[in-house]
Amino acid sequence: MTFEEAAHLLWRGRLPDSSELTTLRREMAALRALPAETLHVVRAAAKAPPIDVLRMACATLSLDLANPDAITLDADLAAATVLTARFPTVLAAHARIVAGKEPIAPRGDLSHAANFLYMLHGKEPDPIAARAIDTYWVTVIDHGMNASTFAARVIASTRSDMVSAVTGAIGALKGPLHGGAPGPVLDMLVDIGSADRAEAWVRKELTAGRRIMGFGHRVYKVRDPRADVLSSVATEMSQAALEDHKLFDLARSVEQTILRVLDEVKPGRNLRTNVEFYTALVLQAVGLKPRSFVATFACGRVAGWCAHVIEQHAEDHLIRPQSEYVGPKGLTVD
Amino acid sequence: MTFEEAAHLLWRGRLPDSSELTTLRREMAALRALPAETLHVVRAAAKAPPIDVLRMACATLSLDLANPDAITLDADLAAATVLTARFPTVLAAHARIVAGKEPIAPRGDLSHAANFLYMLHGKEPDPIAARAIDTYWVTVIDHGMNASTFAARVIASTRSDMVSAVTGAIGALKGPLHGGAPGPVLDMLVDIGSADRAEAWVRKELTAGRRIMGFGHRVYKVRDPRADVLSSVATEMSQAALEDHKLFDLARSVEQTILRVLDEVKPGRNLRTNVEFYTALVLQAVGLKPRSFVATFACGRVAGWCAHVIEQHAEDHLIRPQSEYVGPKGLTVD
Repeated sequence: MTFEEAAHLLWRGRLPDSSELTTLRREMAALRALPAETLHVVRAAAKAPPIDVLRMACATLSLDLANPDAITLDADLAAATVLTARFPTVLAAHARIVAGKEPIAPRGDLSHAANFLYMLHGKEPDPIAARAIDTYWVTVIDHGMNASTFAARVIASTRSDMVSAVTGAIGALKGPLHGGAPGPVLDMLVDIGSADRAEAWVRKELTAGRRIMGFGHRVYKVRDPRADVLSSVATEMSQAALEDHKLFDLARSVEQTILRVLDEVKPGRNLRTNVEFYTALVLQAVGLKPRSFVATFACGRVAGWCAHVIEQHAEDHLIRPQSEYVGPKGLTVD
Repeated sequence: MTFEEAAHLLWRGRLPDSSELTTLRREMAALRALPAETLHVVRAAAKAPPIDVLRMACATLSLDLANPDAITLDADLAAATVLTARFPTVLAAHARIVAGKEPIAPRGDLSHAANFLYMLHGKEPDPIAARAIDTYWVTVIDHGMNASTFAARVIASTRSDMVSAVTGAIGALKGPLHGGAPGPVLDMLVDIGSADRAEAWVRKELTAGRRIMGFGHRVYKVRDPRADVLSSVATEMSQAALEDHKLFDLARSVEQTILRVLDEVKPGRNLRTNVEFYTALVLQAVGLKPRSFVATFACGRVAGWCAHVIEQHAEDHLIRPQSEYVGPKGLTVD
């Protein structure tokens, strides 16, 4: 399914019929342009990492919402649509500004994914590239109770608003232990350089006690199912000559070598290729820079965050854990 | 102790000696002025609630940090100092802009609390008023694992940065179930109007199943100890004729009536006056509007959030709960 259909599923509990899908597409397309104040923030933050720019821009997106503080389902859905519609615009505008170019106004006749690439490159994208981004966003749209989603739910649990919750989630996604890994996969491939150097490289890294980027997952002890989907997308892009074929071939070969060495060096750990490995290839292939990868991830995940906020608002109970004080008992002053 | 001393205690684990206190005071004073881009956001958000303005402004405060993404203790302390130093400036600038006036530049020779009132009103505050704000901020500087602090820790647990974590915490504090209650206490007093109407009013509210604002706490089943501190401050302010004496007398009388009726109607529940009750009186007395109360709370709590982020970064483990799927098993498409 497309990203818009997946968003409808998460927000309303079922896939849209064709008329509902047309309505959602139209609503999102109409909301893509950034308010002047948000665009000002993006320009002011030209030198900041894209995920920081997204945090700053998102924090301002309550400014033109009709009911920014309301936590009714209608207000939440309106905010979800605004946030999801605008995240790619923020990212594309920032990338253009960083490159010394003017932002390109969104087009309402393109899909969410195709319009993103259009705003980024100034021309209509190859349908395979647009479909790749669309598939990527569907693949990462939600992933249960990860740290950013949980942050959004903790914030929403106080009956705070959608924009506040999603702004917090962006901050969590930024962390290297959560969304911050796709860039280093490319660094690794560049560092390895050629297939015949992979085995020595990975053994050296493991001996030094370092983690191999793009392999292993806290939850999955089998191959991350999302990696299969993105592997297919990467193959399709490679066959359409849309990407650097050499990098793709290297990645395939390196993946096999790393899996073999991991199985040997860490037997029983079942460290498998994760979603970040192919994400790096796909995003690079559509012309995104590694520094934009986490923010591009957020453009998909935002729809999932919004769905969790809607659910948390419906549950309406405060998430406030107890903690146990283990520090010293008295306070001494010199 | 003063707010600056309490911040030092939380950030470094001990109270400062006089030379350390002088250093921290100087550092904070030097950092009070807002970067041009943050001030631009504050102006653009003139019509937004102050807590939203604080969220938007805070999100931009990474822009002039030397190492915005670093999670070393030094970088965290630098960010903590910047955020804590600037929150009152954001709030005062916004209040001035809303009132159609120009923001007032901070003064480096005043304490953190006195400078806040100076920026708000354009004249040096009465020492009793400055001490009242200082005491209020010390009183609320930290309160264990509340929802906003927990949100900050979840975000920081991904190795995300201080600004991202604190921006998320502001969003959580905004919620009516967390920091959003001091305003309604004044609404209640205005609604009651005179001491002789208090008993009928509170009985009617309780019969209607409504919660009485400013009474009861999720954790405390005795009188909130912070209420005693702020009650003393309110008494001092009242005696110095710094506040509306009538409102204060009404509050005292209403408090006794409510406690008596709560004991009778909800026996064994031990619903006591909480920190929000006297907070409302104290903040109103120094000239703050109820719409600024939550953001003023954040100006104190920010130092505690920063301390928790420092602690979380030192613990360095991801907070990512498991969740159990309880929805339908299949997906049906019409």
